[in-house]
Amino acid sequence: MINFEVKIKHYPEIVRAMPIVTLLTDSGETDFYVAAIKAKILSVNPSVRIEDISHKIAPCDIGHGSFVLKAVFRDFPKGTVHLVGVDATGGKGDGFIALQLEDHFFVGVDNGLLGLLSDKPHQNLVQLNSVNPVESTFPEKDILAPAAARLASGVSITDLGKPLSSFKKMTNRHVKATKKSILGHVVRVDNFGNLITNIQRDAFEELSKGKAYTVHVGGEKFRKVHSNFHQADQGDCFIFFNSLGLLEIGIYKGNANELLGLTYDSPVNIIFEE
Amino acid sequence: MINFEVKIKHYPEIVRAMPIVTLLTDSGETDFYVAAIKAKILSVNPSVRIEDISHKIAPCDIGHGSFVLKAVFRDFPKGTVHLVGVDATGGKGDGFIALQLEDHFFVGVDNGLLGLLSDKPHQNLVQLNSVNPVESTFPEKDILAPAAARLASGVSITDLGKPLSSFKKMTNRHVKATKKSILGHVVRVDNFGNLITNIQRDAFEELSKGKAYTVHVGGEKFRKVHSNFHQADQGDCFIFFNSLGLLEIGIYKGNANELLGLTYDSPVNIIFEE
Amino acid sequence: MINFEVKIKHYPEIVRAMPIVTLLTDSGETDFYVAAIKAKILSVNPSVRIEDISHKIAPCDIGHGSFVLKAVFRDFPKGTVHLVGVDATGGKGDGFIALQLEDHFFVGVDNGLLGLLSDKPHQNLVQLNSVNPVESTFPEKDILAPAAARLASGVSITDLGKPLSSFKKMTNRHVKATKKSILGHVVRVDNFGNLITNIQRDAFEELSKGKAYTVHVGGEKFRKVHSNFHQADQGDCFIFFNSLGLLEIGIYKGNANELLGLTYDSPVNIIFEE
Repeated sequence: MINFEVKIKHYPEIVRAMPIVTLLTDSGETDFYVAAIKAKILSVNPSVRIEDISHKIAPCDIGHGSFVLKAVFRDFPKGTVHLVGVDATGGKGDGFIALQLEDHFFVGVDNGLLGLLSDKPHQNLVQLNSVNPVESTFPEKDILAPAAARLASGVSITDLGKPLSSFKKMTNRHVKATKKSILGHVVRVDNFGNLITNIQRDAFEELSKGKAYTVHVGGEKFRKVHSNFHQADQGDCFIFFNSLGLLEIGIYKGNANELLGLTYDSPVNIIFEE
Repeated sequence: MINFEVKIKHYPEIVRAMPIVTLLTDSGETDFYVAAIKAKILSVNPSVRIEDISHKIAPCDIGHGSFVLKAVFRDFPKGTVHLVGVDATGGKGDGFIALQLEDHFFVGVDNGLLGLLSDKPHQNLVQLNSVNPVESTFPEKDILAPAAARLASGVSITDLGKPLSSFKKMTNRHVKATKKSILGHVVRVDNFGNLITNIQRDAFEELSKGKAYTVHVGGEKFRKVHSNFHQADQGDCFIFFNSLGLLEIGIYKGNANELLGLTYDSPVNIIFEE
Repeated sequence: MINFEVKIKHYPEIVRAMPIVTLLTDSGETDFYVAAIKAKILSVNPSVRIEDISHKIAPCDIGHGSFVLKAVFRDFPKGTVHLVGVDATGGKGDGFIALQLEDHFFVGVDNGLLGLLSDKPHQNLVQLNSVNPVESTFPEKDILAPAAARLASGVSITDLGKPLSSFKKMTNRHVKATKKSILGHVVRVDNFGNLITNIQRDAFEELSKGKAYTVHVGGEKFRKVHSNFHQADQGDCFIFFNSLGLLEIGIYKGNANELLGLTYDSPVNIIFEE
């Protein structure tokens, strides 16, 4: 048997070590805002690698923003800096923070979004803009971009501001799981019209062991979880666990959102038979 | 006369040699999908240069995706790797492939899109995910991204999987050309509302030699092909051969699509006079 | 007191010196146009750093394009090359130019957009495509991209074409300012529905010294300029000077554009009391 595991050529450490800053904003793509954030980062360190996660988060939608960032931040190398400019002015009294969490760095406003990313305790937390504070109506550029660029340049997070003991922790909508049922909700309708729920594979597998079950979604019932799209026929709705380990309702080449009339926060109910 | 041909400064080979991976998907820009693909590529080789071609291909639209990729892939340097995540789960039985074609590399699902790119024979073709296959509902990230990153890192295509003898070849809608007429179709309505057809300049020039002609498009008739936009008046429809060598119907500062009511697949008919 | 000013690590000059080309187009994101421009730049110099400003400028909208570019070009490092592909074929007789202005470089068609960027005199101005001219229906790729790549590669602007003495200067809509009033207009409705006007902070502060004033916008009246978003209640309209120093009407977590029914070019009137 042939060995398909082949070592890739080694690129010099100089390039390999180029730091990454990701951007997640609700700024859209028709204005100068995103370019101004990037230009500010480059003015601090022109060698930073900037990767867009999305600039099409719905304006001020903390739920949308946190879902997308939580789904992907761990895929980036440890040490990556994530600049979060969703609802970037925040509410009254919300400060600007830098956070080290699961070996990643985050800079943003303390509006609750960052508190939805992980259940793990943070490693470091500092208040930005606390020394000689700047008042800004464009804090993504004036406060967050310089902090992100410095972190990506090797400045220690503890050198960016005064330490804080806590930041705003919101809780995602809970799943109610008993021996008889799991009640969850749609947490995201994606670009394809697939409906992503907050029901996790682990909980489902634990509770469904050896039991028949019915998944109720809108008016539809499912009695089987597919392992891939090809087990369904074109235009058929089906359910599967997605790459995040979350139950998802899709249509093979279709739009489940339109067909089932479900949207963000719609209930999804799994009933186990005795 | 002054010599405007000036040699550019030479940048070091280390940077010059940075490999390119292009991305073409139907994933949109409001989800975590594109960022997850990029993060996976960077986790294999953090020095890869990633260039987006488009993430706004209409969901599962192989025609749209193949048109865009065919129009631009040759403009990238030879050796560029093109990751194609349009209808990425494909149909039942569609495998994942890596392909060398016209000195470019392509990784994607064998759903027909890759077979529409070129009439030339492929140079290499292998089946991805054939050894210790992974089952995935997100193959762009789990299967295509690592293959693309390896190709961009200098791994030989023949080391990525078992050789295949053939892949799915679809044929684009044919143009019917005779001495009396050419019948083609609209293959793309672009961002400006221009209507791009599949009628090639070569065929037209060969058949129209010394003959008068009338181009019938919707209810409009054209008896002249313009060589640039400035020969028309603002708001006037006109026809020209675009940068791809394809007949295109445009309006100088207007929207031909809206004015003529034509759309994808609408017929365009050229009648030659005897 | 702790010193939060920390020196960032120095990255090697080789990476630091990588030249930047920004792109601003009305080409949208569903076609091959933007990728073709990037591929052409990379074919001239594969080490250029390409940064998108926006590709979602409204088709042929010189006002939109010039507003966005004027707002952000100075944030990029001096020496940055800005490729402007908005209304890129221009009007009859509009030539292609390269321009040095405020130590930045611009390449584009002489359709008036570049003349709206600055009141300062240009440093250098040359005509592109003047020697062995190419006729092209895709000048962003065929004429502007090679010129931008050469500038970014260290070629002198004076080596790119014959010198010109002048280019098209349009004037932005003027603000009428007297001791009694300032009459301005909305120049941009942004992604959030905020209304950006052309009334500058300097003029307002000069004329409002020690005077009460009323700002009339649609049917609304404001008697106070806020210094940040948090002085307003959620859903309340308010006015402030934005990061560009321009008067802006916003709603704290809302859409001023929808609420006030104002749009591009709507009048904004400030009346000073004696």
